[in-house]
Amino acid sequence: MNSLDQVKWDRDGLVPVIAQERDSGDVVMFAWMNREALALTIEKGQAVYWSRSRARLWHKGEESGHVQQVHEIRLDCDNDVVLLKITQHGHQPGIACHTGRHSCFYQRLENGVWQSVEPVLKDPASIYAQQA
Amino acid sequence: MNSLDQVKWDRDGLVPVIAQERDSGDVVMFAWMNREALALTIEKGQAVYWSRSRARLWHKGEESGHVQQVHEIRLDCDNDVVLLKITQHGHQPGIACHTGRHSCFYQRLENGVWQSVEPVLKDPASIYAQQA
Repeated sequence: MNSLDQVKWDRDGLVPVIAQERDSGDVVMFAWMNREALALTIEKGQAVYWSRSRARLWHKGEESGHVQQVHEIRLDCDNDVVLLKITQHGHQPGIACHTGRHSCFYQRLENGVWQSVEPVLKDPASIYAQQA
Repeated sequence: MNSLDQVKWDRDGLVPVIAQERDSGDVVMFAWMNREALALTIEKGQAVYWSRSRARLWHKGEESGHVQQVHEIRLDCDNDVVLLKITQHGHQPGIACHTGRHSCFYQRLENGVWQSVEPVLKDPASIYAQQA
């Protein structure tokens, strides 16, 4: 059976994907893939997601240059969640978040309040300016 | 605003949750929470999920004893994904997966085939026998 057929795609034909930096172990992003996105990720060795908001394939870094090199692709026990071990390119340290932060998970619950606890490493305006 | 109100619950009233071991950095599990599950997780300091298959709250470890102590709760940039930093109790090393493995993400794509690359640490039959 094809490896893509073994994935249990949800009712929208998607699977949740966790991106974890291989070297730091940091979970930097969460996104979705459809079948074509996972096939392209395997083919390119770079993360290609399905953007639900834009309803199109999204080669991570296509605008920002912050591509994710994929070292490993893992599947969970229920075959319905994917974990990528990646290197986040384009900046040092890596910027995975569109806010210019290292990780998308920069809000921490502290005494009942979500606090931003990670710095903006680069102004998002300058990250995305190159697309204009 | 209440911290729970800031979470963007999906059309089913759920949010995806990633459980990462604080000390090892390993991503060990992926599950879902509804509002009540997240409230209970905050209250207990232990992970409480929403089981979609059983359509009920699921205090992780309630049957296996493999509870997840929650050290940190993070929210992503879109307010629609939660990351838990946990300690997996009940066995050393921690067993998060119902198959008796450390992590649910034990299948790795190798030359187009999903290979199981993590050992079963404990027979699931013996993990869940205590509930009988």
